[in-house]
Amino acid sequence: MPIDFKALAVPGVRALQPYQPGKPIDEVARELGLKPEQIIKLASNENPLGPSPKALAAARTALDDLCLYPDGNGFNLKQKLSARLGVTPEQLTLGNGSNDVLELVIRAFADSESEVVFSQYAFAVYPISTQAVGARGVSVPARDWGHDLDAMADAVNERTRIVFVANPNNPTGTALGRDALVRFLARVPENVIVVLDEAYCEYFEDDEFPDGVSLLADHPNLVVTRTFSKAWGLAALRVGYAVSSADIADVLNRVRQPFNVDSVALAAATAVLDDEDYLQRSRQVNRDGLKQLAAGFETLGLDYIPSSGNFIAVDVGRDGSAVFEGLLRQGVIVRPMGGYGMPQHLRISVGLPEENARCLEALQMVLESLNG
Amino acid sequence: MPIDFKALAVPGVRALQPYQPGKPIDEVARELGLKPEQIIKLASNENPLGPSPKALAAARTALDDLCLYPDGNGFNLKQKLSARLGVTPEQLTLGNGSNDVLELVIRAFADSESEVVFSQYAFAVYPISTQAVGARGVSVPARDWGHDLDAMADAVNERTRIVFVANPNNPTGTALGRDALVRFLARVPENVIVVLDEAYCEYFEDDEFPDGVSLLADHPNLVVTRTFSKAWGLAALRVGYAVSSADIADVLNRVRQPFNVDSVALAAATAVLDDEDYLQRSRQVNRDGLKQLAAGFETLGLDYIPSSGNFIAVDVGRDGSAVFEGLLRQGVIVRPMGGYGMPQHLRISVGLPEENARCLEALQMVLESLNG
Repeated sequence: MPIDFKALAVPGVRALQPYQPGKPIDEVARELGLKPEQIIKLASNENPLGPSPKALAAARTALDDLCLYPDGNGFNLKQKLSARLGVTPEQLTLGNGSNDVLELVIRAFADSESEVVFSQYAFAVYPISTQAVGARGVSVPARDWGHDLDAMADAVNERTRIVFVANPNNPTGTALGRDALVRFLARVPENVIVVLDEAYCEYFEDDEFPDGVSLLADHPNLVVTRTFSKAWGLAALRVGYAVSSADIADVLNRVRQPFNVDSVALAAATAVLDDEDYLQRSRQVNRDGLKQLAAGFETLGLDYIPSSGNFIAVDVGRDGSAVFEGLLRQGVIVRPMGGYGMPQHLRISVGLPEENARCLEALQMVLESLNG
Repeated sequence: MPIDFKALAVPGVRALQPYQPGKPIDEVARELGLKPEQIIKLASNENPLGPSPKALAAARTALDDLCLYPDGNGFNLKQKLSARLGVTPEQLTLGNGSNDVLELVIRAFADSESEVVFSQYAFAVYPISTQAVGARGVSVPARDWGHDLDAMADAVNERTRIVFVANPNNPTGTALGRDALVRFLARVPENVIVVLDEAYCEYFEDDEFPDGVSLLADHPNLVVTRTFSKAWGLAALRVGYAVSSADIADVLNRVRQPFNVDSVALAAATAVLDDEDYLQRSRQVNRDGLKQLAAGFETLGLDYIPSSGNFIAVDVGRDGSAVFEGLLRQGVIVRPMGGYGMPQHLRISVGLPEENARCLEALQMVLESLNG
């Protein structure tokens, strides 16, 4: 009888459902017989500007050393980041995208005896990585599509090791102000790690933005995670990081694979931090695009969740997967949200003005044809 | 009282000692006040040829899409690999270097109830990643610096989930023939995963090379891992893979981070598989360099372990760390082996002819000064 290898996997892994990423352009082109240039992808919250020229130049130079292992300690990137953030290099943990850092926290601090708390409608990687180590994920019902921080604090018990808070939250775009966050942190016991996922923080333009790094001094149990994949435009290269106390960073760096961030990624991320102009342009394009999409949804009579990220979750008023498929046939890739328990919503990433316009047009056509 | 976050880590992580990689050239330059171009690094088994022109061109092209997430399924690379290896794409698991794949196997199949078997003097990542999940690592004494496969099969018990076999073995360079490996596989129960780490297989030029992929059909519990970091010259980019039954690959792909291999890495690895000329030149440089180093060691009266890899472990006849430090001051980085329990050995990677010559000269000087 053949061996059932899935049954041999550790208990958490046996029940694991893999993360469903946005469909890549090439894959949609292959499946639908379209040309890649006919397709726009507003599915993965990618930066529509194209790469920073400074990042690109640094990446090109790094290609000279393809045969050499990366600097496993990320010396140059850590120097640059620590100066920018006002922390020491010892407080930083670099990751293969912030996904890697999120997973490191779970693998370091949670096991089959633990509970991990996160919000309903939160990033799918929290429950998946929690499940992978056999810990119990506790999903706390959202309030107005956002985190109910009081209920999340209430959900913490003696088995809780980690609480995930995303600000702004993906996929809903909701945001938390500084006061609410500080009150929450005061309620969480000091021996519970609070991961504040700020992947989208550069788009959070309110004065209320509770910069997590500024809260570290008062909250040694806080781990702030960020990424170069969004506003910095380096999704292809996979660079993220955690800022925490040096003690927590020491633990995370022990679990980290020694060469988890590659040389091209290190070089590009180091260089892009000098490209303030790129960051500002990213923000401006996003600000304009959010307004354009919101206005379009209003014209179509669709509800949407006001967003502090680079995407909007829009309620299409019917089964979202049919609308998703219809858009796909028009060459517009967005993200269906059934997997997040939001079957009527689609998450649409902010594109360039012409991409947003084309998406809105296609959406109108698809809805007319489905409702027709 | 401040919280002790290390004490809050899961048991396996608490005792974790991080992997010590070879010192990067820039770091040695900073520490010793040398210029990077004065330094040669023969410490990390990197390909001394410089990158394949085909890989480089593909990597440059991939930089156009820095803002887009990688193809999480690695479609193109899997197509190319599966054609080359005579397996289906469903049998492949891509990793951020083979380090990533090795770790995926452990995280998928081992936990605190498990035992994991490997050889004395084997790659440090096996015991480290075993420790990280709280499993018990069983190190089986080596025979003549290589794997004692009979003793390893004897070490398998009802708690054993994984056995690691490296062929050729890093850091000793020893190799196993096909017959020995087939006998070993016949002795290991089918519900125990055997990982055959072939990171250095392209350098194993004997007719006896027991190509692990050819053994998969008869051994569904076999996982063969390989890398693009050595003979293919892409260490900077972190690409490795596992070949296994589709069932095991399905489990590993569930545990894998969705974008664990970045776009530049995918493009370069896909392209380099077409550069057979590069592979042949890599092998020739290595063949010549192994002879050059071995002859040099003989002239110096030093014992060494005959190697089937792209490195040689040489017995310097005294405390290796002092010789390592002496070489470092000469601008020659090699790898001390105290951490592997081989305190008198240094592992020297094969370089270009002039690098090998400079290393041998420096070694002679350092030994004369220490012995004098």
